[in-house]
Amino acid sequence: MTLPSPLLDQLGALFGDRLSTTAAMREQHGKDESHFPPCPPDAVVFARSTAEVAAAVKACAAHGVPVIAFGTGTSLEGHVAALRGGVCVDVSGMDAILTVRPEDMDVTIQPGVRRKQLNDYLRDTGLFFPIDPGADASLGGMAATRASGTNAVRYGTMRENVLSLEVVLPDGRVIRTAGRARKSSAGYDLTRLFVGSEGTLGIITELTLRLHGIPEAISAAVCPFPSVEAAVNAVILTIQSGIPVARIEFMDEAMVDAVNRYAKTSHAVAPTLFFEFHGSEAGVREQAEKVQAIAGEFGAHHFQWATSPEDRSRLWAARHNAYYAGVALQPGCRAWTTDTCVPISRLAECLLETKDDLAASRLTSAVVGHVGDGNFHVMLLVDPNRPEDIAEAERLNRRIVRRALAMDGTCTGEHGVGHGKMEFLAEEFGEALEVMRTLKRAIDPQGIMNPGKIVEV
Amino acid sequence: MTLPSPLLDQLGALFGDRLSTTAAMREQHGKDESHFPPCPPDAVVFARSTAEVAAAVKACAAHGVPVIAFGTGTSLEGHVAALRGGVCVDVSGMDAILTVRPEDMDVTIQPGVRRKQLNDYLRDTGLFFPIDPGADASLGGMAATRASGTNAVRYGTMRENVLSLEVVLPDGRVIRTAGRARKSSAGYDLTRLFVGSEGTLGIITELTLRLHGIPEAISAAVCPFPSVEAAVNAVILTIQSGIPVARIEFMDEAMVDAVNRYAKTSHAVAPTLFFEFHGSEAGVREQAEKVQAIAGEFGAHHFQWATSPEDRSRLWAARHNAYYAGVALQPGCRAWTTDTCVPISRLAECLLETKDDLAASRLTSAVVGHVGDGNFHVMLLVDPNRPEDIAEAERLNRRIVRRALAMDGTCTGEHGVGHGKMEFLAEEFGEALEVMRTLKRAIDPQGIMNPGKIVEV
Repeated sequence: MTLPSPLLDQLGALFGDRLSTTAAMREQHGKDESHFPPCPPDAVVFARSTAEVAAAVKACAAHGVPVIAFGTGTSLEGHVAALRGGVCVDVSGMDAILTVRPEDMDVTIQPGVRRKQLNDYLRDTGLFFPIDPGADASLGGMAATRASGTNAVRYGTMRENVLSLEVVLPDGRVIRTAGRARKSSAGYDLTRLFVGSEGTLGIITELTLRLHGIPEAISAAVCPFPSVEAAVNAVILTIQSGIPVARIEFMDEAMVDAVNRYAKTSHAVAPTLFFEFHGSEAGVREQAEKVQAIAGEFGAHHFQWATSPEDRSRLWAARHNAYYAGVALQPGCRAWTTDTCVPISRLAECLLETKDDLAASRLTSAVVGHVGDGNFHVMLLVDPNRPEDIAEAERLNRRIVRRALAMDGTCTGEHGVGHGKMEFLAEEFGEALEVMRTLKRAIDPQGIMNPGKIVEV
Repeated sequence: MTLPSPLLDQLGALFGDRLSTTAAMREQHGKDESHFPPCPPDAVVFARSTAEVAAAVKACAAHGVPVIAFGTGTSLEGHVAALRGGVCVDVSGMDAILTVRPEDMDVTIQPGVRRKQLNDYLRDTGLFFPIDPGADASLGGMAATRASGTNAVRYGTMRENVLSLEVVLPDGRVIRTAGRARKSSAGYDLTRLFVGSEGTLGIITELTLRLHGIPEAISAAVCPFPSVEAAVNAVILTIQSGIPVARIEFMDEAMVDAVNRYAKTSHAVAPTLFFEFHGSEAGVREQAEKVQAIAGEFGAHHFQWATSPEDRSRLWAARHNAYYAGVALQPGCRAWTTDTCVPISRLAECLLETKDDLAASRLTSAVVGHVGDGNFHVMLLVDPNRPEDIAEAERLNRRIVRRALAMDGTCTGEHGVGHGKMEFLAEEFGEALEVMRTLKRAIDPQGIMNPGKIVEV
């Protein structure tokens, strides 16, 4: 679409040189880290305040023009693609940490604050924000996609760690979803409604997040297993034993190999679990002993331990680099990443059947997983210029999602729906999808907020 | 109102002798445990299945007649009052525990299952459901009011412990809000939308709940403090130290006195904290030592410990009987219970100012609190036949709520809004209340679901 010139004039008056319509800027704002082709907006504005976001939304609303929020562009399901054109509101410059309240263990920030920035800032307080999706994403984007990552098994996801949001609604009104009490039974849970709404109901302009104490002791370990099944069964028993493990991550042998090449490490090329334990000195020791005993039951005995911060960082760098290591397996390719999550009793079966699918496919692939939650990712390497690659990835992805849904799981554990997973929601939710459409229509009657994502109305 | 006779005929055909219009039955279904006068429905039906609930709702919808769900009637804000008449759907007979899945640590139940029934049933599995509001409430009602209670400080509230709901919508359609995966980023969070919706958006007909492992070791203690301030400051430091205490409960001296009289116990009449610790043997010991050290810092040294299940039950009976002990202070009176929750840094100030208010009032009162969450209850004893008692309770309640809101807290931590707290939502939410109205209108356009609760449209 072409933007109506009165709207462009209005945005120009509001944003001055922070309005851009250059091809390069638009292109950059129309793509994320997924395999989907870019889909640029017609204009980008760089907002510096809630009032500016509200003014931009109000102006677009007056012209019925789509609005897409943009943080760091690290989403994985085409969330920022301007499928119907419109104006991208880039909030990455709204990156102020507004108030840290150590006594309440919470913090209020702007949506462009990034994960690492926040934790660097917090270090001296003895507190940290635990959600860690790997990418150095913006917290606004993490809330919008209901992100989680490696230590959700202990600390929960963005769903459990957002206390309150400030949101600009589709008509430009600004609301605050809740106060700062730890719990409340007052009315409908608007905070949780906007967490995971992917910019389709409004734009998050401020977040109040729960913080957690940096544990007195942390230790990490990596341990190869004789088989995928053995590794997964060790995970299941660990979780069922109620051991409060902070992270429990899986890599298949293909992924370990990719990481070794990429990061020049020398982990044994085998199905591998990465662990992290948080607690008191004694508590961490006790957890580690129990987990070692469980791993031993499943034939795994070679624990490589890391307790110093440097060694732990090195150990976890392997896991955090997995995405980029995977992509590097086949230069020129992009990663198509699946994101199913199943009840943990079905995890071994789900993962093993999926591994069979992968073995039978000609695409290069590797598996990583937040297996403590029942969530794993298959990275399928596709050449975006080869339609047959895309078709094969689509076929595998559908099989994997359908398998998870048949096991009472979900098509997406943490990446969100974007436009990439929309086709699966009818199968996952049935009639409940109609309720989602009802909510979308009620809150965004013009359908201007990130249209073409989550639900079509 | 009088029900249209075609509707009565239809309900009669559906429910036979499980339809009642007797005065006694209607009266019993129009009141809860609050001070509000009863407000009976025009008819009561006793449902035995989701299909029956759906049929009743559909019949009422066809006639535009209100529908009020009823579990155990233990709510505290007039939630079940039939303010505009209509049909009460009693789901207490839907009390089947459908599937326990120990390997996934979850359970699927009907909404009439009660808390104690569930935990009795689960005992042999080594698992338990932690949410404990005191009353032996139905789980459907607990989800509907986003209940919590004594151990939310460790295990969260119903918000964190419901995985999925089956809901009958206002037009009789039946939806399931989610699968059983531990986390999901798939679409709008319908589960959290219905948790806390108090029957105003639909009727919960099935719940899948998270379970937790019964801890290896549990110990409990009661400890009197030299002052309210000392007790609250000990709580704050305990929480800020990240000690994963399972329960940390406060009673003021008036409440301890009431409990002693009611339960024939002999606790020191002083501001008192009740603690419970869950974990491994070593973990529980470590937590207890840390908390004793903190209490000592605030002048409290007399810990009375209970580790055997019988001693712990006896100790907690005091806390659990608090409500009934309070009511027994003044025969013929009813309790008006406040439910504010504030950020923990403001708790001491909030509680002390409130105690000053109570000291200056002629009403008998006592305070209990889930202070680890910043939540406390003032029980105000009122003679329902004395308008001046009601007026004084209303005045105090308003002061207490306004104080909590000024501290960025909430008017209700765990009881819900019902019709008793509606007047405070505009102050608590501002423009966000309009979004709640939008949701109500969209999902229940006829306004037949528990009308006059949460929001007026």
